[in-house]
Amino acid sequence: MGKDKVPYQLKTPKGTKDWEGKDMVIRDRIFSTITTVFKRHGGVTIDTPVFELRPILSGKYGEDSKLIYDLSDQGGELCSLRYDLTVPFARWLAINPTIQSIKRYHIAKVYRRDQPAMTKGRMREFYQCDFDVAGAYDRMVPDAEILRIVCEVFGEQGLGWTGEGGFHIKINHRKVLDGIFEVCGVPKEKIRTISSAVDKLDKSPWEEVKKEMVDEKGLPEEVADRIWEFVQRKGGRDVMDALRQDSRVMANANLVAGLEDMDLLFTYLSAFGILSKVEFYLSLARGLDYYTGVIFEVITEGSVPSATDQKLQKAAQKGKTAEFDEDRSNDPSVGVGSVAGGGRYDELVGMFSGKAQIPCVGISFGVDRIFSITKARMEASKTASAIRPTEVDVFVMAFGGKGFTGLLTERMQIAKMLWDAGIKAEFAYKQKPKLPAQFKSAEQSGIPFAIILGEDEQAQGKVKIKEMGLLEGHPEKDGVMVDIGDLVGEVREKLRRKAEGVEEVVDGVNGLSTQDAEGKTRG
Amino acid sequence: MGKDKVPYQLKTPKGTKDWEGKDMVIRDRIFSTITTVFKRHGGVTIDTPVFELRPILSGKYGEDSKLIYDLSDQGGELCSLRYDLTVPFARWLAINPTIQSIKRYHIAKVYRRDQPAMTKGRMREFYQCDFDVAGAYDRMVPDAEILRIVCEVFGEQGLGWTGEGGFHIKINHRKVLDGIFEVCGVPKEKIRTISSAVDKLDKSPWEEVKKEMVDEKGLPEEVADRIWEFVQRKGGRDVMDALRQDSRVMANANLVAGLEDMDLLFTYLSAFGILSKVEFYLSLARGLDYYTGVIFEVITEGSVPSATDQKLQKAAQKGKTAEFDEDRSNDPSVGVGSVAGGGRYDELVGMFSGKAQIPCVGISFGVDRIFSITKARMEASKTASAIRPTEVDVFVMAFGGKGFTGLLTERMQIAKMLWDAGIKAEFAYKQKPKLPAQFKSAEQSGIPFAIILGEDEQAQGKVKIKEMGLLEGHPEKDGVMVDIGDLVGEVREKLRRKAEGVEEVVDGVNGLSTQDAEGKTRG
Repeated sequence: MGKDKVPYQLKTPKGTKDWEGKDMVIRDRIFSTITTVFKRHGGVTIDTPVFELRPILSGKYGEDSKLIYDLSDQGGELCSLRYDLTVPFARWLAINPTIQSIKRYHIAKVYRRDQPAMTKGRMREFYQCDFDVAGAYDRMVPDAEILRIVCEVFGEQGLGWTGEGGFHIKINHRKVLDGIFEVCGVPKEKIRTISSAVDKLDKSPWEEVKKEMVDEKGLPEEVADRIWEFVQRKGGRDVMDALRQDSRVMANANLVAGLEDMDLLFTYLSAFGILSKVEFYLSLARGLDYYTGVIFEVITEGSVPSATDQKLQKAAQKGKTAEFDEDRSNDPSVGVGSVAGGGRYDELVGMFSGKAQIPCVGISFGVDRIFSITKARMEASKTASAIRPTEVDVFVMAFGGKGFTGLLTERMQIAKMLWDAGIKAEFAYKQKPKLPAQFKSAEQSGIPFAIILGEDEQAQGKVKIKEMGLLEGHPEKDGVMVDIGDLVGEVREKLRRKAEGVEEVVDGVNGLSTQDAEGKTRG
Repeated sequence: MGKDKVPYQLKTPKGTKDWEGKDMVIRDRIFSTITTVFKRHGGVTIDTPVFELRPILSGKYGEDSKLIYDLSDQGGELCSLRYDLTVPFARWLAINPTIQSIKRYHIAKVYRRDQPAMTKGRMREFYQCDFDVAGAYDRMVPDAEILRIVCEVFGEQGLGWTGEGGFHIKINHRKVLDGIFEVCGVPKEKIRTISSAVDKLDKSPWEEVKKEMVDEKGLPEEVADRIWEFVQRKGGRDVMDALRQDSRVMANANLVAGLEDMDLLFTYLSAFGILSKVEFYLSLARGLDYYTGVIFEVITEGSVPSATDQKLQKAAQKGKTAEFDEDRSNDPSVGVGSVAGGGRYDELVGMFSGKAQIPCVGISFGVDRIFSITKARMEASKTASAIRPTEVDVFVMAFGGKGFTGLLTERMQIAKMLWDAGIKAEFAYKQKPKLPAQFKSAEQSGIPFAIILGEDEQAQGKVKIKEMGLLEGHPEKDGVMVDIGDLVGEVREKLRRKAEGVEEVVDGVNGLSTQDAEGKTRG
């Protein structure tokens, strides 16, 4: 306690944070980019409550159920905070039986009582952006579109992830994986636990994973070795072709069905122009039990474009994905893991309703991780410093000599005119502000234009428009006088020109802009 | 249990709901309108966690604290769901002492364990949209801008609340109110409780309120009667003028200071062009304890523009606000209460930090109520039926005769071309879809254009663009053929024309559109 009145720690709860300033602007830009892509593919959004009845979440997340946040029992129903957006979506489908198909997206916070690792972007409260296609459709068609959506999200301008090496997608199929386990001789009851051991191959060497399989999980060593023969394969159609050479594979119903799906998928990915971004990756297993078909994970080259990264990007551009993966594990700057993941889950909706079964496939983007990487890249490329906290275009100011009244109501009237016209404007909340303080406010917010009122000019019905940051010697350096009646039109024209890049701040100043200034100057 | 597998009720928790379909579109439009206004005034947004450490919320909401949702004690910190966005904002200011001023907005859900009344838009989980100005500024300047923001939000196109009578703002001042109580002889310790009795005058007749004051709260009858003399006054500057005639008023420091503020405020509201929307309303008290200056509430004419409403609008246009208020209480269609409210709270930030005191003034828009009214108005004016669930512009379809392959990968390639160009497009997730089913999908989603692939045309590198819903006899009724290489440009041009309202669906069909069709037809 001591000198402060406040007898408790003043902070946000563990694993949560406030978002503010430029971070908010970057995050909103990411949401906006993602939403644009989702809408381009016909997505509609739904919004479910932040908490659900507790039994709805029970039995859906396996061991991770212990990470669910419960609400206190304050009388009435027992509720828990949502753990992801997929289970609430399945619950929504189940209570709306007239909806048999939908492309839905949902951008919202989810909650997990995990050990936070903020530097890696792992929080207890964090955003997910999900896109899911529900409905009984022809095989692999929506699955392919989901992957196309992934490529559009990461390929969009603005995230700075364009270019060939920025990301790639690992794909596998639960039937392929289960078929491999069957072919290798894994007993049925051990398939899921051996599957989670395989999933660790992106973090641990084979020796450790094998040890887990044999020592902990009691798999015969020769079975483990046979699995290793299969799961280190990765690539494109060559992986499929090699598997098909193997008579054991062709005798397994799961493998045949899974490979047929993958074959179709690759055909569709080719039509969508994204075959180069995907990799058939036989050791990808993913943790959640509810997947039933294709599964995928999106990997980026890490949080900061280090020298290693650039080397990797080049390697990736040449298609040397094996080298690329080996290098990654040695680079400490690489470690945010996957930035999106998903797959097909055909049986989750049926868990809520004995009758209706709606097949689904979807992707979840981990926005906080995408944010960390995007921000690091913007900082590295100096684009972060160009981000303005507000979008204000005009600062309305006044100045005067002795006996200056401050022209407050006059500044308000000008602001009103601008707001009426939809122009973003501010003014100092002071009766008699000093001119340097007003300029400082405008500069700090990066506001591009000032409108300056003076008492004499005011009496003549005129104000001055001044573009901020013009260099010495620029013909409009001191601003241009306009009639108040023309002000809105003039500001609009200047904003339009600025938006189109007809910058009046040019090197060598007097070129372009002199002749423009001719027409503009009225004072 | 019985025939279903699911042994619990499948629903959302009490007082919560899923948002979906057109409701989501309308709600997003409201958010977007409000955000546009907030940004026009230089607002920046912050995002705080959905739960706070429990002591941060304690002692801020008086009796309503019992409505706070707590999280279970699962080890670690004790947390509660936020009850509003104001206390988290004050907490954020307190832990960020370098921020001495900000215009911040926040659109997010808040939680109250209240008795839900869904038809009136009262929920346990609901959205608030807050805009607050923090900082030590000259008196009443940010207060006036907050009220200007209110008028812009409700005046914006798209909410359908434009026109004179759509809403009005009741304003009072805590110092005026407290001064009145002092002048009337209310003992200091009874001021807050008498204030909440006065606040009920918008729902209850004076007799009941007086009974509460005298019988329950032990106020002498003559004191209550003196209060009534004051608090039934409402209007504009005339209210101030009348009060100033009263020597008791001019001898009270609170009243003198409060009236000076109101005088300044009215001057600024006049400069902002919104004086006609506000009413000095002496019985407005507002519940929360933390207000210290001006307080306000926004009232609309109700949920449906009934005949009574229209009469009221006319009355309001003529400035007959008294008549207007009397009528309201008799109209059962009126009952959503206030749609926004706020005021000045100069001492809340200091509750979190013994040293720093940051004066604030803000407004909170009750979005769910605004939504209910907006939707009812859209339905009444038939604009609701024009809302499309998705924004898709093109449906890519195929048809063919005997032996038709379905052209799936070809449809995918066309969709890819459109997506690459940023055009929103869908296609049927079927190998061999039937043409009527494809048209039905496009029609149900209100998609304006179809691109139709046929096997013969495909072989010649051509596809057909067809605008949906053209009348019989329209020259482009059957669509126009274009080279695949020109497709994106053609679609863009058609979309541009449609967006600009150069509708090709016109009455009498052959007028305008024939000559347009000339240039377009290529097949």
